[in-house]
Amino acid sequence: MFEKVLIANRGEIALRIIRACKELGVRSVAVYSEADADSLHVQMADEAICIGPAAANASYLKITNIISAAEVADVDAIHPGYGFLAENAHFAEICANCNITFIGPSADCIRNMGDKAIARDTMKAAGVPITPGSDGILKNSDEALELAHKMGYPVLLKAVAGGGGKGMRVARNDVSLVQGFMAAAAEGDASFGNPDLFMEKYIESARHVEVQIIGDKHGNVCHLGERDCSIQRRHQKLVEEAPCPTLTDEERQALGDAAVKAAKAVDYDSAGTLEFLYDETAKQFYFMEMNTRIQVEHTVSEEVSGIDLMKEQIRVAAGEKLSFTQEEMRIEGHAIEYRVNAEDPYNNFTPSPGLVEAVHFPGGPGIRIDSHVYSGYTISPYYDSMIGKIIAKGKDRHEAIARMRRALEEFTIIGPHTSVPLGEALMVDKRFVDGTYNTAYLERFMHEVFLNS
Amino acid sequence: MFEKVLIANRGEIALRIIRACKELGVRSVAVYSEADADSLHVQMADEAICIGPAAANASYLKITNIISAAEVADVDAIHPGYGFLAENAHFAEICANCNITFIGPSADCIRNMGDKAIARDTMKAAGVPITPGSDGILKNSDEALELAHKMGYPVLLKAVAGGGGKGMRVARNDVSLVQGFMAAAAEGDASFGNPDLFMEKYIESARHVEVQIIGDKHGNVCHLGERDCSIQRRHQKLVEEAPCPTLTDEERQALGDAAVKAAKAVDYDSAGTLEFLYDETAKQFYFMEMNTRIQVEHTVSEEVSGIDLMKEQIRVAAGEKLSFTQEEMRIEGHAIEYRVNAEDPYNNFTPSPGLVEAVHFPGGPGIRIDSHVYSGYTISPYYDSMIGKIIAKGKDRHEAIARMRRALEEFTIIGPHTSVPLGEALMVDKRFVDGTYNTAYLERFMHEVFLNS
Repeated sequence: MFEKVLIANRGEIALRIIRACKELGVRSVAVYSEADADSLHVQMADEAICIGPAAANASYLKITNIISAAEVADVDAIHPGYGFLAENAHFAEICANCNITFIGPSADCIRNMGDKAIARDTMKAAGVPITPGSDGILKNSDEALELAHKMGYPVLLKAVAGGGGKGMRVARNDVSLVQGFMAAAAEGDASFGNPDLFMEKYIESARHVEVQIIGDKHGNVCHLGERDCSIQRRHQKLVEEAPCPTLTDEERQALGDAAVKAAKAVDYDSAGTLEFLYDETAKQFYFMEMNTRIQVEHTVSEEVSGIDLMKEQIRVAAGEKLSFTQEEMRIEGHAIEYRVNAEDPYNNFTPSPGLVEAVHFPGGPGIRIDSHVYSGYTISPYYDSMIGKIIAKGKDRHEAIARMRRALEEFTIIGPHTSVPLGEALMVDKRFVDGTYNTAYLERFMHEVFLNS
Repeated sequence: MFEKVLIANRGEIALRIIRACKELGVRSVAVYSEADADSLHVQMADEAICIGPAAANASYLKITNIISAAEVADVDAIHPGYGFLAENAHFAEICANCNITFIGPSADCIRNMGDKAIARDTMKAAGVPITPGSDGILKNSDEALELAHKMGYPVLLKAVAGGGGKGMRVARNDVSLVQGFMAAAAEGDASFGNPDLFMEKYIESARHVEVQIIGDKHGNVCHLGERDCSIQRRHQKLVEEAPCPTLTDEERQALGDAAVKAAKAVDYDSAGTLEFLYDETAKQFYFMEMNTRIQVEHTVSEEVSGIDLMKEQIRVAAGEKLSFTQEEMRIEGHAIEYRVNAEDPYNNFTPSPGLVEAVHFPGGPGIRIDSHVYSGYTISPYYDSMIGKIIAKGKDRHEAIARMRRALEEFTIIGPHTSVPLGEALMVDKRFVDGTYNTAYLERFMHEVFLNS
């Protein structure tokens, strides 16, 4: 096992990693920007090193500063968390060159899965279902038109290097396809330095269902069941739950098998997620993308599997075998995560940073809190607006919802606006309670709120 | 199900009951003394009624005031929590006379199990192992001497109506037996209005192992496995865990069966606990007493069984059947509870009430917090000194201990002294880590601390 791990991140995920290190008996080194000097991750880690000014590209994204900190602190390994450098293949390579273990998959894996066209081809070759679409990159808009006529509208144009909703366009006819092609290519070029596009059939009524997998350096790969993350606004997840409330056991099994097959096809040896679109009409799932990192919502899989994913990810990075087999892995009960953000959901989700005069988190049975915020903490405008995550676990979905409801009601904060009132409204909405929502649900829900107000 | 429940209690257990009511969709009515006007249970309940001044015998113990509040609020049921009126048979009878359901066992059950001599006889008749001792009440010290000679020293004298360590004396020879007889009888008379004593063989090296049971009004009784509560100071539990780290599967099974048999023998139809002494030398367990209430440490049984005992207790009181069978009940993983008290463990556990300037509770995986304390709350000198309970759950005992360690380290409070530093010391002590402690352990540990300081 490692002696000392540097955490190249901040906020709640930095705390999550520090907690895992403490439980493993591994020393932890926090890094922080000048804006984060009063952060809890700085106080909780065994050591802390300032790596630059507030702007992320001068601190949390600045590879030279992080590597210097790692060398000064003499660590064995770096955990990148999510976001920032977590899916930067170049950073993974530099770590390897410095003889520091990057706690994540290989640089090749990150690079290949980061290129949506390569990822698609790889999955296709491995026999994982993919949405009908172009074989690789589209030459021009004429090729796009031809293919669209063959597949039928609507179609989805995607920048090869895209992410977070950027470089994506839905087209429902020839005119919008040609316009969308130019717009998406320009956006891909501007945002990621790559104008290349590919095209997929657009699925109107879909759920976002993802499978948590983890592999070790001994060729073992297991999945920990699926999560439903269909409730999103602007491609950002707000509510996640495990298991998906509407899958049949057969579909669940097939999805898990496909995810393990996909991960084995790329010799995956860390924690990762296979994202699928589930077409509710055709009752068919399609590979969307692979996230080669630990995710925000890993918590719900931990709750239903009883497996500490973060510790497991650190252990396998240190060369240990997975501590469980697929046969031993059992999903029990139901877990829901709600992201508490400092934002005003009823004012276009405007961020609401600033001083938290007082905060009191919910407690009691089945409630887990992952948060870096404390009374007197100032939420920085430089980074994401997450205050924390409330995770509610119950013996079944009904109990998990009841617990989440009362937890959101208990949550008390003086200072910023938060996403909590929206959560309270969602938890009593019939479509959520019935589990019959899809990726279009949250937008529709928000429209209804404004129509009724 | 009930429409409205009054909670005749305060502090963390009042919150626990309110949370259960919210999850069940039942309205909750808090009662509070003048000293508790700013308490969280007052804020969290749907309604709140002041029942008198700070002194418990003028408020939380004042039956007329509580019944008046229940009638004004028009409730269906009263939950007594633990302590105060929870094991007051007279209160249970008055509730019944007012057509208010007392959420607990029958008045007869409370009365019979509250009399240690009757409880002992009942268990003996039901075939539950009891410690060798007197058949009922001792006539005088001569009878005690005769029996002690027959059983052999050491022996334990117990007041029939005793509790909390009062009216108890260990005797190791004739002189101490005669002295102890007079002292215990006088204490029993002064504290409980009853000088009657009985005698048991005193077990030197024992563990306190108790079994959680729950029954319904349809004749079903299940157990939820055992808890080890051997770590006590002045007969007050400090650390509790489930399961007991040293029992064999056969012993566990036998203990569970005995507890269910005992509960069935008294037609038990609520949540309760059978306390046993486990003789480490003879590898034999003996019935000690039955607690006819929900206990502080019910949380660890909830964590390892996945069953919400508080909701289950309310449901069975409303006439529902148990939601599970003994065959369905499965114990998984390991849970430890640590009681955070406002007291100075290194100064003879002196209570340390007063203003909590700031408090920040631990979080992350496997950590549950049950507490009524918030930043700005004043811990009253009128009631017990509990700040809250930290419950750590892991897939095994090793993980639960690792999580408890880091949780105690994370716990931050400005204001009172707390039992947290002692918890941190216990969690790394070899005897605790090995699980080889007994009821004498904490006292010995404290002696060592002072010898080494």
